[in-house]
Amino acid sequence: MAPCLQETPLMTRPFNFSPGPAALPDEVLQQAASEMLDWQGSGMSVMEMSHRGKEFISIAEQAEADLREILSVPKSHRILFMQGGAIAENAIIPMNLSRGGRADYVITGSWSVKSAKEARRYCEVHISATNEADHHTTLPAYGSWKISDNAAYVHVCSNETIHGVEMHELPDLAALGSKAPLVIDCSSHIVSRTIDWSRVGLAYAGAQKNIGPSGLTIVIVREDLIGHALPITPSAFDYRIVADNESMYNTPPTYPWYLAGLVFQWIKRQRETTAAGALTGLAAIEARNIAKAELLYGYIDASGFYRNTVAANCRSRMNAPFFLPKDELNEPFLAGAKAAGLLQLKGHKSVGGMRASIYNAMPLAGVQALVAYMQDFAARHG
Amino acid sequence: MAPCLQETPLMTRPFNFSPGPAALPDEVLQQAASEMLDWQGSGMSVMEMSHRGKEFISIAEQAEADLREILSVPKSHRILFMQGGAIAENAIIPMNLSRGGRADYVITGSWSVKSAKEARRYCEVHISATNEADHHTTLPAYGSWKISDNAAYVHVCSNETIHGVEMHELPDLAALGSKAPLVIDCSSHIVSRTIDWSRVGLAYAGAQKNIGPSGLTIVIVREDLIGHALPITPSAFDYRIVADNESMYNTPPTYPWYLAGLVFQWIKRQRETTAAGALTGLAAIEARNIAKAELLYGYIDASGFYRNTVAANCRSRMNAPFFLPKDELNEPFLAGAKAAGLLQLKGHKSVGGMRASIYNAMPLAGVQALVAYMQDFAARHG
Repeated sequence: MAPCLQETPLMTRPFNFSPGPAALPDEVLQQAASEMLDWQGSGMSVMEMSHRGKEFISIAEQAEADLREILSVPKSHRILFMQGGAIAENAIIPMNLSRGGRADYVITGSWSVKSAKEARRYCEVHISATNEADHHTTLPAYGSWKISDNAAYVHVCSNETIHGVEMHELPDLAALGSKAPLVIDCSSHIVSRTIDWSRVGLAYAGAQKNIGPSGLTIVIVREDLIGHALPITPSAFDYRIVADNESMYNTPPTYPWYLAGLVFQWIKRQRETTAAGALTGLAAIEARNIAKAELLYGYIDASGFYRNTVAANCRSRMNAPFFLPKDELNEPFLAGAKAAGLLQLKGHKSVGGMRASIYNAMPLAGVQALVAYMQDFAARHG
Repeated sequence: MAPCLQETPLMTRPFNFSPGPAALPDEVLQQAASEMLDWQGSGMSVMEMSHRGKEFISIAEQAEADLREILSVPKSHRILFMQGGAIAENAIIPMNLSRGGRADYVITGSWSVKSAKEARRYCEVHISATNEADHHTTLPAYGSWKISDNAAYVHVCSNETIHGVEMHELPDLAALGSKAPLVIDCSSHIVSRTIDWSRVGLAYAGAQKNIGPSGLTIVIVREDLIGHALPITPSAFDYRIVADNESMYNTPPTYPWYLAGLVFQWIKRQRETTAAGALTGLAAIEARNIAKAELLYGYIDASGFYRNTVAANCRSRMNAPFFLPKDELNEPFLAGAKAAGLLQLKGHKSVGGMRASIYNAMPLAGVQALVAYMQDFAARHG
């Protein structure tokens, strides 16, 4: 197929701040479009391939290998490609890990609240710590965590998409006196930064923020945690069955898996030159994410107009909720933003105000454009 | 974006007989490619849209309305867009419908065997009838069905993808003296023919045969069957929660949903002129499917070389398994087929031989090309 899509005037694409499903890199979408009717001379779209054929298996294996490389996932952990998103996983995890006993949950925002609530169908849930009194704008100090002696696992949401609270260091449960495995819902910041696997038993993420289209869930789980599913666990969601069948016991979401692979290749191609030297791959991505977040929060704090209410030590690099001085300004702000090519900035209804989701695919230029618009809007309404 | 993809020499695409994920219409793939970076001037790929935004909601609602129109789904039945495929649904159905009691299953091939096995995790399973003694090549006569008095539902697989056995008429449970709702796994022949909804309580289908990419499951369920989920049902799979949230309680597989919508539009555009007059939409599709199946089975039976072992009254219009006179001919047959632009004809390992899956997207020309190749191969090896 002629690579005519490369002639498309990409500069006209607006900047998309959707919390998810979220923006994907232009290059990835261009490649997907150009391969849509014929993947690498196979005569088939990736959508049309048997998941058991050599073509799709090569795509699947490459994507898994690239994710393992990007995140430095050790051999001790399996990578599973599943369906149902993080919300289904909120049930699937206690089905697989709780053994019907007790599991501990740390509450830091809407998503961890939801996870804990769902787990109660399958096990006794103990809340180790919560930031509810602070309206989900802080992280509970480790000294305050009360972890059950017999916890099957301890669950945290390492980035709260709605409240904009991120754990910039994962908890060291061993240092807190617990032998329980740590489970992290990293849906909205996976592959935005490194993960210390020595602290993690299971990490899970819906794909639709940093990885690809919705409909794909990544589960990275330590081998010894596999094989303990409750009898009521559907076969399609039993980690033992999924792992033994290379995530192909049920037909996997093949096209989202392929798109995820294109995104992983894109991550590997990234380069950034910083004061610390030349960075590549995830390190380049992380440096760019830090720069983007510093620019945005720096401007908000200095503006005297906009407000972000999250404690400075746990502001999310991915999701920045912010407020205007008066709610009446919200609609004019959004309308002007859209006219300026800045999309999907409305805050979640449970928090209000605005939210800029600045995932990996958002270039620094997008944050610069947002800040320029915010400056202009503040000057006109300040 | 320039519509340059229309210049692609589509005639060079081979015919793809994959059992699933399966071939999609060229027009659908072309439209998806041309809209990949910018859906209808929105500045976003469909993959990049919030599922709660007006753009995606319009796509989702149109797809649902089109499917309802194509299949004449009555108001009594809800249409749900879910994840996990038919294999996950094998658990989700007894979770939602069995009330922990008894459910009846009719065995006609590999898929109904699998469904019955999975259901045993959640309820008592009674086998009403089975064609196992005939190696899954017949349909059990209705007179032989023994339906439990207290069956919460009766499950059938109305098209067995692997064994090539199709129910050309759905069972009338009322006529068999049962008030239980009929549940049909119609994964591999949905939207290939009409459905008599007066006989159906719940129909479910993985999308990856006739509807779109894998990762999307369609569930069409009568309203009174919703709301009885077992307490261990994950929220994401509780039909009450899914229905009340318009299939958006968890983030749906937005891109597969969009592709399904393009396929539904394609079905609505189809036209066929037959002896019975001009047909449109699903009627045109069904007439074409009948013509394709008659051509293929007619040739197989007349060939004196190839064999299909399924009883004539239940041969599948979608999946035609067939055998060569000697297994040693299988590899040469497949190699020659591939060279002739006829892909993915290898039979399922549990059955052996060949299998031609001729879903909606397979044109009559594809079956003609297959038959021509088969004739040539038989002449050379007969």
